[in-house]
Amino acid sequence: MAYTIGLDYGTNSVRCIIVDVADGNELAAAIYEYETGDAGIILDSSDHNLARQNPADYVKGIEVTVTQAIAKAKKASKDFDPASVIGIGIDTTGSTPLPVTQTGRPLAMLDEFKDNPNAHAWLWKDHTGYAEAAEITQLAEKQHPEYLAKCGSTYSSEWFFSKILHCLRTDPKVFDAAYTWVECCDYIPAVLTGTEKPEKIKPSRCAAGHKAMFNAGWGGLPAKDFLANLDPKLGMLRDRLYTETYTVDTKAGDLTAEWAAKLGLKAGIPVAVGAFDAHLGAVGSGIAPGKLVKIIGTSTCDMLVADSAQPLADIPGICGIVDGSILPGFFGLEAGQSAVGDIFNWFVNYVSSDSHEALTEKAAKLKPGQSGLLALDWNNGNRTILVDQRLTGLLLGQTLHTKPEEIYRALIEATAFGALTIINRFEEYGVTVSEVVNCGGIAEKNPLLMQIYADVTGREMKISRSAQSCALGSAIAGAVVAGTKAGGYNNFADAQNAMCGIKDITFKPIAENRQIYEKLYALYKQLHDAFGLADSSAQLGNLMKQLLNIKDAANA
Amino acid sequence: MAYTIGLDYGTNSVRCIIVDVADGNELAAAIYEYETGDAGIILDSSDHNLARQNPADYVKGIEVTVTQAIAKAKKASKDFDPASVIGIGIDTTGSTPLPVTQTGRPLAMLDEFKDNPNAHAWLWKDHTGYAEAAEITQLAEKQHPEYLAKCGSTYSSEWFFSKILHCLRTDPKVFDAAYTWVECCDYIPAVLTGTEKPEKIKPSRCAAGHKAMFNAGWGGLPAKDFLANLDPKLGMLRDRLYTETYTVDTKAGDLTAEWAAKLGLKAGIPVAVGAFDAHLGAVGSGIAPGKLVKIIGTSTCDMLVADSAQPLADIPGICGIVDGSILPGFFGLEAGQSAVGDIFNWFVNYVSSDSHEALTEKAAKLKPGQSGLLALDWNNGNRTILVDQRLTGLLLGQTLHTKPEEIYRALIEATAFGALTIINRFEEYGVTVSEVVNCGGIAEKNPLLMQIYADVTGREMKISRSAQSCALGSAIAGAVVAGTKAGGYNNFADAQNAMCGIKDITFKPIAENRQIYEKLYALYKQLHDAFGLADSSAQLGNLMKQLLNIKDAANA
Repeated sequence: MAYTIGLDYGTNSVRCIIVDVADGNELAAAIYEYETGDAGIILDSSDHNLARQNPADYVKGIEVTVTQAIAKAKKASKDFDPASVIGIGIDTTGSTPLPVTQTGRPLAMLDEFKDNPNAHAWLWKDHTGYAEAAEITQLAEKQHPEYLAKCGSTYSSEWFFSKILHCLRTDPKVFDAAYTWVECCDYIPAVLTGTEKPEKIKPSRCAAGHKAMFNAGWGGLPAKDFLANLDPKLGMLRDRLYTETYTVDTKAGDLTAEWAAKLGLKAGIPVAVGAFDAHLGAVGSGIAPGKLVKIIGTSTCDMLVADSAQPLADIPGICGIVDGSILPGFFGLEAGQSAVGDIFNWFVNYVSSDSHEALTEKAAKLKPGQSGLLALDWNNGNRTILVDQRLTGLLLGQTLHTKPEEIYRALIEATAFGALTIINRFEEYGVTVSEVVNCGGIAEKNPLLMQIYADVTGREMKISRSAQSCALGSAIAGAVVAGTKAGGYNNFADAQNAMCGIKDITFKPIAENRQIYEKLYALYKQLHDAFGLADSSAQLGNLMKQLLNIKDAANA
Repeated sequence: MAYTIGLDYGTNSVRCIIVDVADGNELAAAIYEYETGDAGIILDSSDHNLARQNPADYVKGIEVTVTQAIAKAKKASKDFDPASVIGIGIDTTGSTPLPVTQTGRPLAMLDEFKDNPNAHAWLWKDHTGYAEAAEITQLAEKQHPEYLAKCGSTYSSEWFFSKILHCLRTDPKVFDAAYTWVECCDYIPAVLTGTEKPEKIKPSRCAAGHKAMFNAGWGGLPAKDFLANLDPKLGMLRDRLYTETYTVDTKAGDLTAEWAAKLGLKAGIPVAVGAFDAHLGAVGSGIAPGKLVKIIGTSTCDMLVADSAQPLADIPGICGIVDGSILPGFFGLEAGQSAVGDIFNWFVNYVSSDSHEALTEKAAKLKPGQSGLLALDWNNGNRTILVDQRLTGLLLGQTLHTKPEEIYRALIEATAFGALTIINRFEEYGVTVSEVVNCGGIAEKNPLLMQIYADVTGREMKISRSAQSCALGSAIAGAVVAGTKAGGYNNFADAQNAMCGIKDITFKPIAENRQIYEKLYALYKQLHDAFGLADSSAQLGNLMKQLLNIKDAANA
């Protein structure tokens, strides 16, 4: 028997699972909830854009979860021997960069900086760098449009350089004290393998490609000139970043004796290069060419791969196209909806007095089209295909008799229409979606949503067998870096074949629902284009922004 | 001391007030809630459009409320002598026609028909005749566009001939048994004065002009040919309707000895010709040229008068322009919003878990524009200026942080924008609005709404002093038909001068709010035109209808 460990760093906690390499079954799991801040996030009541994390929580999370999971595994199977753990894989949120010293120590761990949120990890959903993001986008449009073509035509405030540039501008002391910045998904493997020194780190292709404009086509990171034009210091930082990046079939290093002792594992087992949760979640859901993996949570990530030996056009509005970001040898394509579960949560937590359960039960009794409602799923902006965080929600068709469950269903349908818009965009550019596998809590727990998605997209909705696809994907990476000799696999296809699967229950489109949703989607698309395209013939393309300008002025 | 009685027939109850003719003060009041049906309305669970009332409730309501009010008046003032009541005025809902026999007896009071809702009064909000309304509109467009020009370009399902034609089509037994049909506001004065026989009734100009296309310009009611083209029987009915109509300064007759005895009043006192509640409400609020009276309840009626000696253009989208419908010698102009209070009630009763009070308190703390929300006030269609009952609501700008009080305020603002659109339409066609007086429960109880209306319209909002403007308007009509000799007045101007007033507290526009609302209104108007005009350049003008077509099909 051989096992691997998958470590999955989420927004509020880290999860460790121990997985049977033969069939992907989870033997044991443990969770550590980050201790610092509010549910693990350092907030600033005067700046809603700020979201940071304490790197010490990340490190503590390794020890707590791995030792607990091992203890549980021993209980679950008396045959379990920690020495049969042959590899470790890691996924994290991102872009979540942290400033580190020349020895690779997070500034946040230094006494001088321990109370300064800018010295901590800048969590993916930190948006403090929104102005810098706009600046980077503008400059790239002028000087290097090719940078933007690979990342959906807009550089996001959630990404690497927006955050660093914002730190440089607003807290130069932190910026100057930092030797360099590393992504969380590079930091954890480095800690476990004793390679924290920046020059020893094997940076993740996934993080670099999707968030730092790294592309072999233009020689790696953005040109020094380009960064220097944003700020000379940013240009200088480029020399202390990296020139090579690595896919998840690469070993980041070997587990140090010190960590092996602490965790009760065998020293020297390989630790895979890290990647983002969505990307390893796609791996854990069995991603392959033509197979769309939808990771549905508060937001969604829609992941596809395409053979990188074949030419692939740039796809406007897709968040990123990065060779090897999901599977080695394939372009990783990442799209997504800025809010899905978050929209339902908003309605339940802020507006309606009913629970998700009650609303879902009543909404399930409604027929498609019956409520006369239509919504746009933009309460948190639109990530794909409009790439516009300043779009807002819209609900249309309400009467004096409109019931909360009708609104709730309309919101679910809106997210389904958004999902279809993404699929259509992929297919318009030659990337076929022949199969859809869903994972995440909502996919597992909400058959109504899955049926609506099937009816709206006209595609069968399958659900990943593992409830922890991200952690499973990490464990699969652990099995691949271990290799067949150690009891693992030599490639992802073999590993996925053995370790992934889908649930027995799937959701097939119902023809009569499909017919109605085709009509509703035509109206959704009309609204989408009228309000989403700045140059729409409807001349409403700027209305949401004008409203936000008024809002900003009123709140100033 | 002289007093008059105002009888105000509302949707769920009738109210009687006894008013001091000298100053308009209310000495006593009594209410009778109709007993039949659901809160006084006969409904049909299989047809949401149906709303009928039992005429027996109307008659019983006279005796119950007048005798109670007299008893209360005696308690309130020991000097009060019922013999000092010098006149009676009556307002009712409308169009609320009822089928009657040749002697003027409501069919509903006959054993044969007492359980048949079609033989009862067809309450204003009965929409069963929507198909017939469309048919009347279509035929008038072809043959007599001038009919539509005076009633906002669309003949409504709420109106006289739509209801009668629907009865003819669906229940010919009732139609054939009816000698003719009388409006509720004609029926009550006839009962009190013993003039129920159809040829003795003095029909209300207000009802005939606003709801039955009666206009001296084309010789009274619509041409016999026109009605016969809709149905030969309808053409024949025209001969049993009326050729003359009367304004509220006309005496419908004298109180019969029988009713005088029953009520404890002096026999022979004059009863004024009836009118609709909104029209006499405008009178009770002191309406005069340039003074807009807004009656704000579940919906609004916006009333203006213009000297009928001066020419007046047709105003597209205004519900009706009728000479003498409000004040003799003036065109009565009626506009309105299909839902105001009803929209807030919908949000509180159907969607939010908060009360009106809690939402209002929180909404009052928000600054204009601060929420980033914008709504259309079309949850019950748009009466003025689009005259389209099949428009629906729209809410735009919601994020993941949008709070119920922000939505609530956006809904109030939407109704204010709708109110401004009506004022603008009047002014575009030369009818100046130099003063605004509000009445109705919402105007009295919601200072936040009044302030928003002031800020949005840029006009001071005044509130009618009487909490019962409609009943007061009826009492004023009673004082006018009594005349100076009996202690009343010879004209409405004198009567209104003495008996009407406004409250001390008014709401003046706040300059900085006004500025923001001007910007928001520009966006509202963009949405209004994009979704409200079928031929809008935005090409969204049909979207709400297409959605309703899908809804209708799904519900079929």
